[in-house]
Amino acid sequence: MSAHFVDRLFAAMRRVGNPVVVGIDPRPEELPPGFLERFPADQSGVAAALGQFGREIIDIVATHVALVKFQSAFYEAYGPPGFVALHETVEHAKRMGLIVILDGKRNDIGSTAEAYARGYLGKVPIGGSFEPCWNVDALTINAYLGTEGVTPFIKVAARENKGVFVLVRTSNRSAGDFQDLVADGKPLYRHVAERVRLWGQSSLGQEGYSLVGAVVGATYPTQLAELRAALPKVLLLVPGYGTQGATSLDIASAFDDDGLGALVNNSRGITFAYERPAYLARFGDDWQGAVRQALQDMIDDLAANTPAGKLRV
Amino acid sequence: MSAHFVDRLFAAMRRVGNPVVVGIDPRPEELPPGFLERFPADQSGVAAALGQFGREIIDIVATHVALVKFQSAFYEAYGPPGFVALHETVEHAKRMGLIVILDGKRNDIGSTAEAYARGYLGKVPIGGSFEPCWNVDALTINAYLGTEGVTPFIKVAARENKGVFVLVRTSNRSAGDFQDLVADGKPLYRHVAERVRLWGQSSLGQEGYSLVGAVVGATYPTQLAELRAALPKVLLLVPGYGTQGATSLDIASAFDDDGLGALVNNSRGITFAYERPAYLARFGDDWQGAVRQALQDMIDDLAANTPAGKLRV
Repeated sequence: MSAHFVDRLFAAMRRVGNPVVVGIDPRPEELPPGFLERFPADQSGVAAALGQFGREIIDIVATHVALVKFQSAFYEAYGPPGFVALHETVEHAKRMGLIVILDGKRNDIGSTAEAYARGYLGKVPIGGSFEPCWNVDALTINAYLGTEGVTPFIKVAARENKGVFVLVRTSNRSAGDFQDLVADGKPLYRHVAERVRLWGQSSLGQEGYSLVGAVVGATYPTQLAELRAALPKVLLLVPGYGTQGATSLDIASAFDDDGLGALVNNSRGITFAYERPAYLARFGDDWQGAVRQALQDMIDDLAANTPAGKLRV
Repeated sequence: MSAHFVDRLFAAMRRVGNPVVVGIDPRPEELPPGFLERFPADQSGVAAALGQFGREIIDIVATHVALVKFQSAFYEAYGPPGFVALHETVEHAKRMGLIVILDGKRNDIGSTAEAYARGYLGKVPIGGSFEPCWNVDALTINAYLGTEGVTPFIKVAARENKGVFVLVRTSNRSAGDFQDLVADGKPLYRHVAERVRLWGQSSLGQEGYSLVGAVVGATYPTQLAELRAALPKVLLLVPGYGTQGATSLDIASAFDDDGLGALVNNSRGITFAYERPAYLARFGDDWQGAVRQALQDMIDDLAANTPAGKLRV
């Protein structure tokens, strides 16, 4: 953990040759046929199934990508056993050499924000010392509460060589309800973006990038290009590829000249590829084969149609 | 659970005669002297201490107030054992007849938001049926993602007779960084407030109040009065009393003519009252006595200086 988050990340992206983040959002209703039935039909059983599914996904993708992103909601929904499953899956991802983003969109102020930051990114007080507890590499956060809601996360991330991703322009249809409101001549999301730039200025790595990244949806390509230009050394975490409708061409503008600077997430489109007609026809019950192929197809698509192709050399 | 959330809530507030929410934010560093030392000096031990502290607080306050609010961050920071402690403490609060708010400020979209909503407020799929998992009465949420980030919570809350509280104007100093930006002639927090009013219109209880409440800090009394007027049948959850500097006079405008419509939270000021010089001088090592007295003092203060006094009759 001795290197800056983005320096570690870029090294890993160069090693695997792509900017793909495999999103693990284990919706129980979408697990492959028969998967849930291998576990007891109770709360702990479903939680164990979510854990096992995530670990099997990780075993398939670990040598091909640099990162995975866990959607906390699906684990939290099953209570304490859900968190046990999340923790075990995070540990498995780290053992397999993956960088782990927890998508929790946490937000609070002062010592409460610090508790989230210490818990997920840093160390918590235990006895007379401090020990890591979740120890993920990066956390998504929501900045509605302003600077006091963000700086505790940045402080802990800087100390621990971890990262944060602030929601700036999300990928959903109603994202603009508030994010597009225009104040002082620019939309709210640009105000948040400007703060992200400022918050990150004192925490640059050797690659020149800040540990404070931004979440910017691929489903709004014009705004994605605009934000790449406005935030030249800010890492963009880009959801929306695939299932949500964005294509590699929509995402091309998210990268810097070296093919770096953007992480492209795909959750359902990879983990539940077996549901998509093209993969179903080819792979049938072999959901793992569908995952492997969907991931390779995404990697190839980004390499062919975005600057991320430069990572492949 | 057969009555609308606000109807149940108002009945409970009339029964106890006050609008106080005891906030349980178990910072390990602030536990009474010697408390942590009763538990093993490891992650599970600290988590168990947080659970025990919450349960002892509940035993002191349960006959005096209608609600408690748990700050999720302090439990989450200790990983799966922290969630076990939170779950056990929530269960204890419900057994003691308290209405439980989970302060998690959750936010996401679509089926992910639905997973949070089902998990915390509703029921999750297990085997062929649906079962409650956390089963709290209300959850705080953050609306930065727009309507799609809020309606899944409202839908589940409506079905289950639960409530949500949307962050509108928070109590911290930097709240205005984004919340005060003026678009179309009014600040962002008023745009969020207007949506809160609209989102709640189809879910009114017999008291005329909506299940969609708003978080509005007591530390901005002018805006609190303004929002009470703008949102006449929206429940306000008001943090900031006491430790954060707001007084009962600042909060008086948050209530409706019946002394209802507002919930006043106090966390540290009650649970860690033993740290405050006045209570320390009087109670010394008896931290439970300090809790009891600080709660009574707050109840009396609100009764004397706000319309909530009407609840006492």
